[in-house]
Amino acid sequence: MASTENLESLFHPRSVAVVGASDKPGKISGVIMESLAAAGFDGPVYPVNPSYEEVGGVRCYPTLGHIEGGVDLAVLAVPAGAVPGILEESPGSARGVVIIGGGFGETGPEGKELERRVREAARKAGTRVVGPNCMGLYNSSAGLDTFFIPRDRLRRPPSGGVSIISQSGSFAITAMDELASEGVGVAKVVSYGNKLDVNEADCLEYLASDESTSAVAVYMESVSDGRAFVEAAARCVSAKPVMALKVGRFGAGSRAARSHTGAMTGRYEVYRAAFRKSGVIEVGGYEEFIGGCKALGAEKTPRGRRVVIVTDGGGIGVGLADSCSEAGLEVPELDDEVKETLAREFPSYFAVANPLDLTGSVTDGLFAEAVEKVLDGDNFDMAIVAALWGPPGLTDDLAELLSQKAEISGKPVLVCSPGGEYSRERMGLFRERGLPVFPSPESAVRAASVIAEVGERAGRDGKGKG
Amino acid sequence: MASTENLESLFHPRSVAVVGASDKPGKISGVIMESLAAAGFDGPVYPVNPSYEEVGGVRCYPTLGHIEGGVDLAVLAVPAGAVPGILEESPGSARGVVIIGGGFGETGPEGKELERRVREAARKAGTRVVGPNCMGLYNSSAGLDTFFIPRDRLRRPPSGGVSIISQSGSFAITAMDELASEGVGVAKVVSYGNKLDVNEADCLEYLASDESTSAVAVYMESVSDGRAFVEAAARCVSAKPVMALKVGRFGAGSRAARSHTGAMTGRYEVYRAAFRKSGVIEVGGYEEFIGGCKALGAEKTPRGRRVVIVTDGGGIGVGLADSCSEAGLEVPELDDEVKETLAREFPSYFAVANPLDLTGSVTDGLFAEAVEKVLDGDNFDMAIVAALWGPPGLTDDLAELLSQKAEISGKPVLVCSPGGEYSRERMGLFRERGLPVFPSPESAVRAASVIAEVGERAGRDGKGKG
Repeated sequence: MASTENLESLFHPRSVAVVGASDKPGKISGVIMESLAAAGFDGPVYPVNPSYEEVGGVRCYPTLGHIEGGVDLAVLAVPAGAVPGILEESPGSARGVVIIGGGFGETGPEGKELERRVREAARKAGTRVVGPNCMGLYNSSAGLDTFFIPRDRLRRPPSGGVSIISQSGSFAITAMDELASEGVGVAKVVSYGNKLDVNEADCLEYLASDESTSAVAVYMESVSDGRAFVEAAARCVSAKPVMALKVGRFGAGSRAARSHTGAMTGRYEVYRAAFRKSGVIEVGGYEEFIGGCKALGAEKTPRGRRVVIVTDGGGIGVGLADSCSEAGLEVPELDDEVKETLAREFPSYFAVANPLDLTGSVTDGLFAEAVEKVLDGDNFDMAIVAALWGPPGLTDDLAELLSQKAEISGKPVLVCSPGGEYSRERMGLFRERGLPVFPSPESAVRAASVIAEVGERAGRDGKGKG
Repeated sequence: MASTENLESLFHPRSVAVVGASDKPGKISGVIMESLAAAGFDGPVYPVNPSYEEVGGVRCYPTLGHIEGGVDLAVLAVPAGAVPGILEESPGSARGVVIIGGGFGETGPEGKELERRVREAARKAGTRVVGPNCMGLYNSSAGLDTFFIPRDRLRRPPSGGVSIISQSGSFAITAMDELASEGVGVAKVVSYGNKLDVNEADCLEYLASDESTSAVAVYMESVSDGRAFVEAAARCVSAKPVMALKVGRFGAGSRAARSHTGAMTGRYEVYRAAFRKSGVIEVGGYEEFIGGCKALGAEKTPRGRRVVIVTDGGGIGVGLADSCSEAGLEVPELDDEVKETLAREFPSYFAVANPLDLTGSVTDGLFAEAVEKVLDGDNFDMAIVAALWGPPGLTDDLAELLSQKAEISGKPVLVCSPGGEYSRERMGLFRERGLPVFPSPESAVRAASVIAEVGERAGRDGKGKG
């Protein structure tokens, strides 16, 4: 059974202790204190370390037990061997604990014994534990950030609706950093590593009723308890889309996962069945995970999988149509009425079809008009717009015009803008206007396919999400 | 039969005429004159237009026939209807012709009739024709550039070994622009559009013996003559790797290709068989095309498909191993000797395996040492290095150290550097040192899979390319 007991104190702590704090530069504990400060955490942050009286000019406590009233969350940045003692000596002084360091179950029997002691101490005191071997917790709306990577190397995403739960810390931070650069808003991130206590099922259960989370993206190597996972995932799916990347699917990957987080990855077919049963949308890798987050972050769900492609580059349009077919998306023809309207208004050499090829004679206005006309009515569930920047009639106004038309249609409009510097610079224009934008045709198709599945599931469940 | 007759005058013209030249700003002809100047074309460039005495301060000729001795290459930037007359009125005044504009066979019977007249006039005069409905020719070593997109929107790649032949102009320029931003060197680009005369087989035949071309990348919607293609492709493959993206493979894409270049895309299985027969490596889309060009541009071919993964991010490593398996690459275990050496020299919590996980405690030196040790001996054909920039021990020196180790090994080392701005900025460090670098694990795997195929084919043919 998933348990959300005391998870609130993990995600919304009123006070935080950093155990292992020191003034030595370059220490993980120091970065964590900086992360909390930079995130704007407004409760007290207590350094804990028996070797110091003060850290960073703030009073330092010898143990957690010395902090009057205890803390909601203690972040332990100490060697593995010291962890059980900390929980045993001050039982209950922290309602929640994050154990950052590795050196536990993933390293062998001794590490497993450390984990056993931690689990026992935590259970006795009713303390929830995240980790060990993890990054911990990020909550954009609570100024919570236990991640020990400085902000110049790891940008934090803006506040938004996507929450990420990840067995891998490096995966979580790489995704966060990429989403930050893509302007995708994030609600909560949990990196739970060896999941000695808090696991994917607990997090899904918690996020199911978390109002700031509109979609959940999961990276997993293994599941702790299959039944609990399916139950929690199904509950979460009934409230919001859940997308999962399961790695360690094949020989080498499975072997690697074992040495990474000590995870027994199990048979992949079992995972696929669990995803299907609970309604979790499976993605195949990092790219699709990021693309899915971008599309889910835009919070527009198509009703189905019928895509209209609008482009000024014929070849890219043909390739997009192929990719859509391969991804199981439909690219039906335009209906006759729309065809006639467009043929009347557009130059004769525009290819009025799906893909709609506006050629090098395109202008901002024609592009926007095309998108408006093809999305009108009920023939398509979403549009993929491939904007190639060669034509002189395309200017920086295109993004604004397209976003207006997307707004009018109420349908997802995914943009791809492949190419070099000029194109890459222009991607920001779409991003700023809330249009998910991708560097290649295939990346746009991958994202479209994720939200198409979300839409179809919602349709089947009779939720008719818009 | 493929014919390379007179192709030399297309790729290495001593003189160029731009027909339809004018001083009106924004005209395609003007951009083409600028492109030639910016590319450093050092032969005469003649504007041709009966309406002007001068264009850009240079004497303008009323017809091609008025240029004494004719020209090697005439670029026609005039409406479709005017094209046949130009070839008919001055037969043979241009040894080669590029017809930029559309409005030919792709639009219907009238356009087809124009094509017929052009073909007849060209055949009579022995003139080779590129196009219509195309961008024309780019040759980095001859200062040739007929592409009508200004350089601020379309960067031109540096001089290098990859040549691109493309039925789609927009695909060609988007790829060029992306490759330019990726620092991938290009030899020649041919955008041949409707291929009224010069087609993919002619280009392959020509590039087979082109010394400045070390690899060929093809974008195709259709093949004009299956037998000629297979013959020319096989000849080219015997000299250098040939990679092809065939689009219009499926329903909607196939339909789209027809309206794009009038191409009858034919049954996909026939193409696959032709690729197999001729030894052409098929890629699945734009991303793989770009990735393949990047890897081929580095001109290091692995002997086979055994990949070693070295990373400081365990989760990304697991995902990479999965992707390799999915792409048919092998990720065998490290051999015992290497394992023992690494276990002795590395901290105990590094996961000494394949993937090799150096964890957040990695440094530049440990990363480089790891790559050197695992590539030593004959256990692996190439390495994929996933560099995540969180660990404080990684600095900008990493790229230089890794490139030294790659050089020593003589094996391909592909880098991926996923994440946000900090990672993206660091990609250039690898690029500058000749290490192909990719923004995601999957993109590195796609490129690895292309060069693995190149290596295996070379091995089978007993060429043993290094």
